[in-house]
Amino acid sequence: MPHATRRAILCATLAAALCGASAATHAQSDPLPSWNDDTAKKSITDFVGRVTKEGSADFVPPAERIAVFDNDGTLWCEQPAYFQLMFAIDRVKVLAPKHPEWKTQQPFKALLAGDMKTVAAGGMKSIGQIVAVTHAGMSTEEFSRTVTDWLGTARHPRFKRPFNELVYRPMLELLAYLRANGFKTFIVSGGGVEFMRAWVEKVYGIPPEQVVGSSGEVKFELGPDGKPVLIKLAKVEFIDDGPGKPVGINRFIGRRPIFAFGNSDGDRQMLEWTAAGGGARFMGLVHHTDAGREYAYDRQSHIGKLDKALDEAAAKGWTVVDMKRDWKRIFAFEY
Amino acid sequence: MPHATRRAILCATLAAALCGASAATHAQSDPLPSWNDDTAKKSITDFVGRVTKEGSADFVPPAERIAVFDNDGTLWCEQPAYFQLMFAIDRVKVLAPKHPEWKTQQPFKALLAGDMKTVAAGGMKSIGQIVAVTHAGMSTEEFSRTVTDWLGTARHPRFKRPFNELVYRPMLELLAYLRANGFKTFIVSGGGVEFMRAWVEKVYGIPPEQVVGSSGEVKFELGPDGKPVLIKLAKVEFIDDGPGKPVGINRFIGRRPIFAFGNSDGDRQMLEWTAAGGGARFMGLVHHTDAGREYAYDRQSHIGKLDKALDEAAAKGWTVVDMKRDWKRIFAFEY
Repeated sequence: MPHATRRAILCATLAAALCGASAATHAQSDPLPSWNDDTAKKSITDFVGRVTKEGSADFVPPAERIAVFDNDGTLWCEQPAYFQLMFAIDRVKVLAPKHPEWKTQQPFKALLAGDMKTVAAGGMKSIGQIVAVTHAGMSTEEFSRTVTDWLGTARHPRFKRPFNELVYRPMLELLAYLRANGFKTFIVSGGGVEFMRAWVEKVYGIPPEQVVGSSGEVKFELGPDGKPVLIKLAKVEFIDDGPGKPVGINRFIGRRPIFAFGNSDGDRQMLEWTAAGGGARFMGLVHHTDAGREYAYDRQSHIGKLDKALDEAAAKGWTVVDMKRDWKRIFAFEY
Repeated sequence: MPHATRRAILCATLAAALCGASAATHAQSDPLPSWNDDTAKKSITDFVGRVTKEGSADFVPPAERIAVFDNDGTLWCEQPAYFQLMFAIDRVKVLAPKHPEWKTQQPFKALLAGDMKTVAAGGMKSIGQIVAVTHAGMSTEEFSRTVTDWLGTARHPRFKRPFNELVYRPMLELLAYLRANGFKTFIVSGGGVEFMRAWVEKVYGIPPEQVVGSSGEVKFELGPDGKPVLIKLAKVEFIDDGPGKPVGINRFIGRRPIFAFGNSDGDRQMLEWTAAGGGARFMGLVHHTDAGREYAYDRQSHIGKLDKALDEAAAKGWTVVDMKRDWKRIFAFEY
């Protein structure tokens, strides 16, 4: 299918999902048509019903209906590797002709030879070097363009689609359903905030100012034409993961969510922080159980490891979405 | 006047200002009744008219109508000292009985003796020590409560009113006018973000998630009851002033404002950053020219120094509000 056609279909699908005007056999009144009528769906609709019903003991005023979502593995796919890492690898390949020294320098030499084992063996140092050359030394606007360009050309190795089509349709419906019920939806992700802001508004309907993520430092400078620019530096400013998630929520949002969704141990503290507030709370985890339609992984996975948070969810009665059981469709392009 | 009565009047005044239903002699259709019909007011209404008119060459879609406001000296008074500094000084006095060592330790000894000259002579080191004991070593919620308590009891030395009543009525009208025209209003202030978030939503109608400010680090911990808490640390995380303002805008908002208002050289880069975007732009400065009704200060002031930005405004045609000439009323309590 040509890219333009695929894009048009995706847009129509998204529009349908966002408007709740799905052509599926379900009644038009079902706001979550891609969810099977099971425990997970019921726990969501019950919660939303309780906090939005005026006069109910659990009623929450609209201004306080803050919902936070992890991104990688919660709103879009994160396999076989974080998509932002795939972006960085592709960027190294694009930039290589201008960097003849990479032919002998690690981790670039290994990366360009496709030897990911050697790259991985370099650990955080290697990743830091790759991020430095692909995410720094340019203006914020130039970086945003490289992300947009990449999304326009790169394809997922298994699904052969642009990476930003690999978003979960049930979660798009959930975002729209929450917003229709007066919630303000935020992303709180370990991913780079500027990497996400380049595309999340179109795909999720979440504006840049509602995206919390990891970030590098930027510096205000006057460009050669006297115009101010913000230059991205190769220095980490904030890691929005694990205990960093409640810290990021406090810093950027300034109030405690009443609804939080994640999929890994990196989301555990965000869910604990959400749970510890007064009144009705919703804590959810996406459990990747569907190797056929997507991927199946949890306690042993290098990416999106879900172990302690899964035990805590069972102990505390948090909602665990079993992708295979709970979702009729997985991706936005399935219709 | 009893505090409750005063509060009721302020609330009614704010409600009237926010609804545009002012009882003033002006036509109900005037969204800025506290502004004299002069150049400054006209430059604002002209700009808003152009960017909101569909089909106009200057039309800006609602999602991109980002308006940013400095706080100290732009939305509320900043004399005779930043109100947050007054809060810190009052807190030192409240905490002193638990700190007998302060009787001999500077800058606390001088502060408790009312010797502000010695405190000031200690420069940033003194201020850092005062901030450390008043803004750290407690949970974010405890800190928020101390701010709310302080606003309930402390009074401005000249106006004898709670500090959060010393907000500029013309600017409340402007915030409401912009929001009625589809703008999203943000604070971008050198003040502490958690200090502001304790009260700005009630007073300005700006929610916590639309407040950008300076911040200290916080740490996620499990409290003695096993409940997670965020503890404020005595370490500066970010200074949202000067070149830090465009950096803060990029970090928190993630897109460039089309409307920016400040009052000092600390707002210069924010206005330059706003001006450097494509399409129609509004850059404004409040010039404190009214010693009778408020204060008069600019190039020589230690607080809210307005020197280079004033020259730049003249050179570039930015709007300069002359408080004495442009504002019929100054404070929210004048009606």
